[in-house]
Amino acid sequence: MQHGSLKDPVVAYETWGELNFQKDNAILIFTGLSPSAHAASSDLDSSHGWWEPMVGPGRPIDTSKYFVICVNSLGSCFGSTGPSSIDPATDKPYGVNFPVLTLEDIARGGHEVISSLGLTQLHSVIGASMGGMTALAFSILYPAAAKALVSISSSARVSPYAIALRSLQREMIRSDPMWREGDYSNDQQPVVGMQQARKLGMITYRSPEEFQKRFGREFVSEERQQNDIFGVDFEVESYLEAHAAKFTGTFDANCYLYLSRAMDLFDVADHGGSLDQGLSRVGADRALVIGVETDVLFPIDQQRELAEGLKSNQREVLFHSLPSLQGHDAFLVDMDRFRPILCDFFNCTMNQPGQLKSVNPFPF
Amino acid sequence: MQHGSLKDPVVAYETWGELNFQKDNAILIFTGLSPSAHAASSDLDSSHGWWEPMVGPGRPIDTSKYFVICVNSLGSCFGSTGPSSIDPATDKPYGVNFPVLTLEDIARGGHEVISSLGLTQLHSVIGASMGGMTALAFSILYPAAAKALVSISSSARVSPYAIALRSLQREMIRSDPMWREGDYSNDQQPVVGMQQARKLGMITYRSPEEFQKRFGREFVSEERQQNDIFGVDFEVESYLEAHAAKFTGTFDANCYLYLSRAMDLFDVADHGGSLDQGLSRVGADRALVIGVETDVLFPIDQQRELAEGLKSNQREVLFHSLPSLQGHDAFLVDMDRFRPILCDFFNCTMNQPGQLKSVNPFPF
Repeated sequence: MQHGSLKDPVVAYETWGELNFQKDNAILIFTGLSPSAHAASSDLDSSHGWWEPMVGPGRPIDTSKYFVICVNSLGSCFGSTGPSSIDPATDKPYGVNFPVLTLEDIARGGHEVISSLGLTQLHSVIGASMGGMTALAFSILYPAAAKALVSISSSARVSPYAIALRSLQREMIRSDPMWREGDYSNDQQPVVGMQQARKLGMITYRSPEEFQKRFGREFVSEERQQNDIFGVDFEVESYLEAHAAKFTGTFDANCYLYLSRAMDLFDVADHGGSLDQGLSRVGADRALVIGVETDVLFPIDQQRELAEGLKSNQREVLFHSLPSLQGHDAFLVDMDRFRPILCDFFNCTMNQPGQLKSVNPFPF
Repeated sequence: MQHGSLKDPVVAYETWGELNFQKDNAILIFTGLSPSAHAASSDLDSSHGWWEPMVGPGRPIDTSKYFVICVNSLGSCFGSTGPSSIDPATDKPYGVNFPVLTLEDIARGGHEVISSLGLTQLHSVIGASMGGMTALAFSILYPAAAKALVSISSSARVSPYAIALRSLQREMIRSDPMWREGDYSNDQQPVVGMQQARKLGMITYRSPEEFQKRFGREFVSEERQQNDIFGVDFEVESYLEAHAAKFTGTFDANCYLYLSRAMDLFDVADHGGSLDQGLSRVGADRALVIGVETDVLFPIDQQRELAEGLKSNQREVLFHSLPSLQGHDAFLVDMDRFRPILCDFFNCTMNQPGQLKSVNPFPF
């Protein structure tokens, strides 16, 4: 891997709500591997965001109360500098000449954003999946920058099982002849490899239990069966096919490779020599750790370990282990379980009658 | 998929031990997806078999007491007729012109073998993984042919999660340009696709817990690191690489595709309309079902379901749920847990002093 630095990198971000006079109501969101900074709709961009039910006026992360910032990760391809960006030195995309990316780099990118907004201390930093690890890196690198840390379906370092799965996803992309050792043009992506990587992703983002309940052994209708001896026969195959098709064309392959590797490389123990020492450097006074019991990628034990490790320095730590069926993806889909917990943490006022009518209402 | 029939198919098998005068000591073994009929070493072939510690004189399946037969599955590539065999009609390998293969076909192949040996009733039929499903198919198709059924890390039908994983494995092979729509020559296999499919197999054959214990986050030594930006950094990646390299060159890609699909298609409910009705057709008087709690591919709940379903017709059913860390592969590696159970079922005499000195001895 090549270590190096970037000349004038850009970090794209979006904001919602207003910074208050005391400048103490800002929340910074780091994303998972693939989303953009568009966490929720806004006046400037009315399209649905990737965390629409969670972020907005009257929602758990209430933009009528908080000033919310979401960054597109450095290394991604939605406005921030990444492998698909033009290298000013060559006038061509960086491709695999992009330097090794770490989650610490992404955290630094987030810190540059809040500094440029004139902020020195956040109400909280929050992230799910890769975003949770980045939020953790942020809290270690800038211990005074956030008073609270929220980690969702994440961990202090990924497991060898997750590394194995991601390593194979990267191999699928790299073995696609269209990848051309990373030197493809942006409109000729290694689509086949990306689709396969996405399928493996979809399998590991959900849970065997959910697949059983949702698909069972249902076959697709005969007219939908492909004229292919090993094509789509089962509903579960059709589901993966549809999701893979949706993903490709929206994400750059080299960006995927760099961000995926950055997740594997991150280890809190690199900050201080051990997991506990690394976690002792986290500056937040309060931490909320939420995990899902059916998560294959970030197993609940890792998240319990993270929560336990954060209980030093008189820090207040809340840990929730959710019995959701949706595995790693639960924070995007199982809103009924996640909303009350985040709402409680952010003192939202959702329980006022009628407040949630525009989103999916749920019983408290 | 093409339905059809084979002209003069061959089923390869090996035997150990002697048939007794009453002809009631024969055990038929069906294999998982990739093994040959060489379950154990013998005078004719002294090389180690795939179930060496389990089959032999003084071992749990005691060949000094039983006449043991193991068949290479129809559709495989170790002597039995399969997609890599020469189609007499064209003088070229069948390739994807091989008809759709089912586990029932493989069971029929096994039945042809025992008939040709002059056997009408077996002491038992036994199989692990795909072999367990084939043994089940055998017991349904030929209810009088085996007095006992042993199913290890198997099920009455696979889960949608397992279908999704296998579907993706097949896609990896089919998307390798060397696959050439199945029309490759035997010495120019789609090696890259096969290696990736094997890696995904290896990941799902073991368990996250075992990977954690075995590899943790160990990096390979610097001299073993490849000069490749996304190459092997972690021990777990090196392990998968080594296993994938060992596998390719030994197994035919089209055979893999057909056998893999046969597993997905099998459903006991196709024999009688429901799971329970299908299982009620099993003819064995005794059944032993063994499952492993960390098995991702054949989750323990499925095996409990199989054991429960077999408890009709006054059948004696034994069910063991093993806490082994080794997941689906445990029956090949965690001998200390499997030996005593099989030994007990087959009334072996392993607990005589000194009996096991030549194999790995273990405490009873």
